[in-house]
Amino acid sequence: MSTFRLALIQLQVSSIKSDNLTRACSLVREAAKQGANIVSLPECFNSPYGTTYFPDYAEKIPGESTQKLSEVAKESSIYLIGGSIPEEDAGKLYNTCSVFGPDGSLLVKHRKIHLFDIDVPGKITFQESKTLSPGDSFSTFDTPYCKVGLGICYDMRFAELAQIYAQRGCQLLVYPGAFNLTTGPAHWELLQRARAVDNQVYVATASPARDDKASYVAWGHSTVVDPWGQVLTKAGTEETILYSDIDLKKLAEIRQQIPILKQKRADLYTVESKKP
Amino acid sequence: MSTFRLALIQLQVSSIKSDNLTRACSLVREAAKQGANIVSLPECFNSPYGTTYFPDYAEKIPGESTQKLSEVAKESSIYLIGGSIPEEDAGKLYNTCSVFGPDGSLLVKHRKIHLFDIDVPGKITFQESKTLSPGDSFSTFDTPYCKVGLGICYDMRFAELAQIYAQRGCQLLVYPGAFNLTTGPAHWELLQRARAVDNQVYVATASPARDDKASYVAWGHSTVVDPWGQVLTKAGTEETILYSDIDLKKLAEIRQQIPILKQKRADLYTVESKKP
Repeated sequence: MSTFRLALIQLQVSSIKSDNLTRACSLVREAAKQGANIVSLPECFNSPYGTTYFPDYAEKIPGESTQKLSEVAKESSIYLIGGSIPEEDAGKLYNTCSVFGPDGSLLVKHRKIHLFDIDVPGKITFQESKTLSPGDSFSTFDTPYCKVGLGICYDMRFAELAQIYAQRGCQLLVYPGAFNLTTGPAHWELLQRARAVDNQVYVATASPARDDKASYVAWGHSTVVDPWGQVLTKAGTEETILYSDIDLKKLAEIRQQIPILKQKRADLYTVESKKP
Repeated sequence: MSTFRLALIQLQVSSIKSDNLTRACSLVREAAKQGANIVSLPECFNSPYGTTYFPDYAEKIPGESTQKLSEVAKESSIYLIGGSIPEEDAGKLYNTCSVFGPDGSLLVKHRKIHLFDIDVPGKITFQESKTLSPGDSFSTFDTPYCKVGLGICYDMRFAELAQIYAQRGCQLLVYPGAFNLTTGPAHWELLQRARAVDNQVYVATASPARDDKASYVAWGHSTVVDPWGQVLTKAGTEETILYSDIDLKKLAEIRQQIPILKQKRADLYTVESKKP
């Protein structure tokens, strides 16, 4: 199966978890009705994004939110990338993406590897590491279409993650993420296009819809980029479902036309992963 | 010295080597007069670009062209990145960039590592490897301002080269290069911005001016990108000298604001060079 439909749910996230879960699930059903095979929710889809909120909204996995995701994935018979939620485990908090298969089973759990700690004076200062702990593993899952690699938001700034996922055969990279009004315009699209053109993969990002009154204002603009580095489609800032039909034959053609993955100089350099 | 002036000479290259050398040297003198400290010529500045031309125009290093570069570097007291020329050595041909210091000495010689072999049906098919051999070493040189890393054109498609140069302390990457009317619009600027934002370095490309009657039509648009991934300046398609004042304090600030080089996960991945 060399084509499939990808749907990115740019959810308007409120401070009420139950509302977020209900609306997320209904939008997942809608996406499935429109023929989506793989669906992604945005980063921190079940609660407001911020270090003061993470402890209050954090839950176990499996738990309330992931149970709902599992059910709706099964009901809709789709692969569901659960954006991310604050996860609590053994006294630590993580920013975690859970992925469910069409049978509702948990396929993989990605804990954000690179915590969003930046300080751009007068613009944006954020320190996820105040309350979150980093994950320490690579996260991919298989589908009948292709292998998918996962990162969350700030993970996208690290080329090595995408390079390793491409080495491992991923042809789609999905980053639930919420850039902001400083990093969004500067880097959101550039980084996606860079990962796509360097690794000749499809790259998708799922952002929450923008809420100008929130303490952390998300950039929005969920996007899908093809292996040529071209933006196929992108959302605005409102709540929406972004659809993109992914053509893996096109990926194969691009890799044949500009065969950089075969022209790497392993005698000069390698990108090595230290963990399975 | 945290600031310096960079000049990129977008030379109109003809089929007459002596003309190209004369005009290249006069533009280097002009750049030095305008206060340039580091000057780059474009890829294949002394002869037309193409596999049929390389054997005819190839010369030894040191040889006619590099002798002239050495003299004008010394006369102008600048660091001169000699774009590239077809080089002949022990029966093999290379696409080679020679760099000269203000005293006229040869600082480093970079032979293009990744040969431009692509086939985009109906658009561009090129096979440098038909006549050229690849280089097999990393090339950096020190200046009072910063360390500079070198690549030539297609080398820019390989993120690993830039990652290693950044690891080695380069803060400016210069790629003499000539993309074409297919890869130029699609990737020329994207790749430069990707290398810059991922490694938080300045990136500069020096292209020949466009000649629509040439067998290989160069894209032009020599460019300078800052460590934030922002295009500082770029040329059109005609012959010109592009100036950019490089501020290394700005580089340091950006690296402090978004400290991705310190947030790498060496416990999960590394980019390793296999050669000094």
